[in-house]
Amino acid sequence: MTEKLKGIAASEGIAIAPAYLLVEPDLSFSKSKVTDLEAEVSRFKEAIDESTKELEAVRDQAKKNLGEEEAQVFDAHLLFLSDPEFSGAIENEIKNNSINAEAALDAISNNFISIFESMTDNAYMQERAADVRDVSKRIMAHLLGVTLPDPATIDHEVVVIAHDLTPSDTAQLNKKYVKGFITDIGGRTAHSAIMARSLEIPAVVGTNTITQDVNNGQMVIADGLDGNVLIEPSAAEISSFDEKGRKFAEQKAEWKKLKDQPSQTADGKHFTIAANIGTPDDMKGVLENGAEAVGLYRTEFLYMDSSDFPTEDAQFEAYKAVIEGMKGKQVIIRTCDIGGDKHLDYWDLPEEMNPFLGLRAIRLSMHNKDIFKTQLRALLRASAYGKLGIMFPMIGTLTELRKAKAILAEVRAELEAKNVKIGEDLQVGMMIEVPAAAILADQFAKEVDFFSIGTNDLIQYTMAADRGNDGVSYLYQPYNPSVLRLIKNTIDGAHQNGIWCGMCGEAAGDSVMFPILLSMGLDEYSMSATSILRIRSLMKKISLEDVKELANEACYVSETFEDNAKLVAETLKKLNIN
Amino acid sequence: MTEKLKGIAASEGIAIAPAYLLVEPDLSFSKSKVTDLEAEVSRFKEAIDESTKELEAVRDQAKKNLGEEEAQVFDAHLLFLSDPEFSGAIENEIKNNSINAEAALDAISNNFISIFESMTDNAYMQERAADVRDVSKRIMAHLLGVTLPDPATIDHEVVVIAHDLTPSDTAQLNKKYVKGFITDIGGRTAHSAIMARSLEIPAVVGTNTITQDVNNGQMVIADGLDGNVLIEPSAAEISSFDEKGRKFAEQKAEWKKLKDQPSQTADGKHFTIAANIGTPDDMKGVLENGAEAVGLYRTEFLYMDSSDFPTEDAQFEAYKAVIEGMKGKQVIIRTCDIGGDKHLDYWDLPEEMNPFLGLRAIRLSMHNKDIFKTQLRALLRASAYGKLGIMFPMIGTLTELRKAKAILAEVRAELEAKNVKIGEDLQVGMMIEVPAAAILADQFAKEVDFFSIGTNDLIQYTMAADRGNDGVSYLYQPYNPSVLRLIKNTIDGAHQNGIWCGMCGEAAGDSVMFPILLSMGLDEYSMSATSILRIRSLMKKISLEDVKELANEACYVSETFEDNAKLVAETLKKLNIN
Repeated sequence: MTEKLKGIAASEGIAIAPAYLLVEPDLSFSKSKVTDLEAEVSRFKEAIDESTKELEAVRDQAKKNLGEEEAQVFDAHLLFLSDPEFSGAIENEIKNNSINAEAALDAISNNFISIFESMTDNAYMQERAADVRDVSKRIMAHLLGVTLPDPATIDHEVVVIAHDLTPSDTAQLNKKYVKGFITDIGGRTAHSAIMARSLEIPAVVGTNTITQDVNNGQMVIADGLDGNVLIEPSAAEISSFDEKGRKFAEQKAEWKKLKDQPSQTADGKHFTIAANIGTPDDMKGVLENGAEAVGLYRTEFLYMDSSDFPTEDAQFEAYKAVIEGMKGKQVIIRTCDIGGDKHLDYWDLPEEMNPFLGLRAIRLSMHNKDIFKTQLRALLRASAYGKLGIMFPMIGTLTELRKAKAILAEVRAELEAKNVKIGEDLQVGMMIEVPAAAILADQFAKEVDFFSIGTNDLIQYTMAADRGNDGVSYLYQPYNPSVLRLIKNTIDGAHQNGIWCGMCGEAAGDSVMFPILLSMGLDEYSMSATSILRIRSLMKKISLEDVKELANEACYVSETFEDNAKLVAETLKKLNIN
Repeated sequence: MTEKLKGIAASEGIAIAPAYLLVEPDLSFSKSKVTDLEAEVSRFKEAIDESTKELEAVRDQAKKNLGEEEAQVFDAHLLFLSDPEFSGAIENEIKNNSINAEAALDAISNNFISIFESMTDNAYMQERAADVRDVSKRIMAHLLGVTLPDPATIDHEVVVIAHDLTPSDTAQLNKKYVKGFITDIGGRTAHSAIMARSLEIPAVVGTNTITQDVNNGQMVIADGLDGNVLIEPSAAEISSFDEKGRKFAEQKAEWKKLKDQPSQTADGKHFTIAANIGTPDDMKGVLENGAEAVGLYRTEFLYMDSSDFPTEDAQFEAYKAVIEGMKGKQVIIRTCDIGGDKHLDYWDLPEEMNPFLGLRAIRLSMHNKDIFKTQLRALLRASAYGKLGIMFPMIGTLTELRKAKAILAEVRAELEAKNVKIGEDLQVGMMIEVPAAAILADQFAKEVDFFSIGTNDLIQYTMAADRGNDGVSYLYQPYNPSVLRLIKNTIDGAHQNGIWCGMCGEAAGDSVMFPILLSMGLDEYSMSATSILRIRSLMKKISLEDVKELANEACYVSETFEDNAKLVAETLKKLNIN
């Protein structure tokens, strides 16, 4: 019988294919004394031989499936595997200490790894540490008689099943054959969820138990529209989900036609639909999906993908690439939001008991004025190449905003003294994500050019619940009337003072949230590029008159999250929108 | 020359006396091989003899200074010190392993400690582990030639200097001679600060460096009114601070006269001034300071001071003692607020990345319904003995409140089925400390009998800043207009729905906050018992007419924390109140 699980729908679409378990087997072992040392050494040599054969096959398939460049890592592994210094040391360890091959392998690999890792000024040698780790894992698997997953060898359609997906896991996946993801942990904002959306493949995350419930090769359905997972579905179920998937694909094809159309309501009112990006590489998706602006460029990836603070020039080039890429459309760049859950190897920050309530984002920038000024210089220089908005994250008090603006003015004066050109369209704005700022929006609006509401943080502080903590994730409620009142207060505060208000949190691309935000008159909706056409299509179907009362009802009549989900569903049903 | 430091004023008054450093010396040692084993054993025996002599002196002085009961712990130490099983084991360890006495002492003590601690079902033996730890520390000090502080021997007036003060440190202090505390770390809500206020001795906390800046016996001034610390003050400084202390004492004597007077404004309006308590022992201070109610009984101490979940009867007795003690005046008891920064040895809770945004208080109670129901049963039984209010902490959504009330109704029905008497005056209320609840106060007010605003948490969530984190403590802003708007919204929501609203956070006893809260019409002010008479005196001097406009100005005209501090100072100055 079909086994059914419920998870979190993290990327839209339906995937139906055999399961591929990207799960590391148990590689634990006991250290033991051996007497027949020769037999132990040959057991080890056999494991080396088997590993070599396996790696050669993996390399050949990787070359075919992924390309020459992606397969190179396996050449490095093979080279290491044939290094007599490595295998010889292990053989000696077995003989000298009369210990089993597993223990000898573990001891010697760890030695090599720590030697390579200690060469902190040599990036090449440091990467070799990762190779040793991978090779040693493969030999260990052969010694223990278990099988490692080899995602690079996937050559047929699969749904990848994992506890969680890391960036290095996904680098080895052949996107052609991966039809969907299902994971044990994670929410809509986890790495695997964000990647699934950018690859436009269906994903269901947070199922808790999928890695235990399914075996390799079992047929599974991942319903990324509603969070359903089916293991060994019946023929009828397959055909019904197939139909659901086809309908979604058709809808998506319809949406594609909206790429070059303006974002407007049924009664012809225009609102901006923008994209959130992390690096200049994301610009392809932004343009393909017809974004009218970049509403949020998260600059922290510049810092996270680097082994030291990015230079002013490196930042300038990245900002300029995005600004030029948008050809005169606005680009909002947020200053660095490090701290909280994001850390850098090269920036020694204090351990905090509650990092989400700690020294992060603008708080950290103002504590490190030189680093902040470098970023502001790069931003101001890039502003000459298009229409830039500089945005400060995590502003909580007017004093903080005034200090940040004063530092910006200082940098600007320094550049102007050197005749550096600064864009005439430059705007300065702030994130609204600390509840205090949402409450005082009327006051903040007098001192900036725009707001952008960051719902992820605003919700977690308003509800006092860490959205990454499973124990309280039920409190992550975008449609809670309290959150909606803060959003309405922010938009009203902006409009009363003649500035525009956007939203760049997850909620901006949420179909239930959208009609409420439209009713509040939100000016700009910034979301994953892959959500843009869906929301543009929805906008086309709703007139402002239809949702005139919705905001007030959602804020003041509804009492719970569930009330509002129901309210929007009923409103859309009345309008014949599904 | 006088050295000056600035800390946080944590308990009012001025203390001038020689410093007493309650700082543990460095007891680290190196393990080494010894050849002359006989010499090493006699070195150890000497340390035992010296420790015995010292402990006898400490015991005799403790008996004299603190009383028979408090001195008993030293008898237990002496008994252990003379136990040949313990010293014999250490001597053998020296001889058998040819190691130094320090290493032998450390190894054997740890053995004893882990044996005692493993007897988890025997509280007596577990306490012995603490004895071994103390005795071993003393012997180690003698071996290393350093001196341990012995607070029990203090027989003259001192100001105690410590990195931080733990409950066990303070148990050994003779309150008669301790004129003040100065610590390196901690804020107004740290244990040492709370204790200083309950002992009514001046305290300055958070000086960062006091333990390094001052030597034993140096004269110091602790100014608990303004957070000043002076080391080796001049005669002129001593006399000036002495005068400041005398004035404060006079004012306090004036306040004492208000003990049995009602809390009312200059124009005769009554508002309730209540006390916050942690245990039934605090009732003495409550009655001495003329509290009109207990506005917050923090029940978590019942859980924290226990080695297992407190039984229903143990809880019932504690609640009943407080309710009866108040003789018909209302007692608000908050259900258990464990989690966050408060943990229990016997309750295995998950590690959380942001515990303040995690599974705490009512969230945890509802996950552990049996534990919650036990507490509710004890509370309902105790309600028959006076006027009880049951209060739920950390409510964030109406769904949570409804669930908590449903569980209470279930327990009530079970008790009524057994004819257990339940108080007729019973009220059910909630803390307002999650921003979401403050924002939706109008909706929550329809479903409870009262609100009590918890400012500590409300501020930290509204400003998104952990109040215990030095890096962001500048954002802990009780008078920030955003916080004040939430407080006003809560009070207005309560009054529009005919229920009363109190405050039980630190801010209720704050002299700057008080006129603003009065202007908002807050009904009940619950604070440390030692603040009651100061606030009652302040209330007597202000008429509601005087502060009619204050709330609106503080919420809508002021833009910053500093604006409001100035606004209140000017308002009081105009009224000739200082």
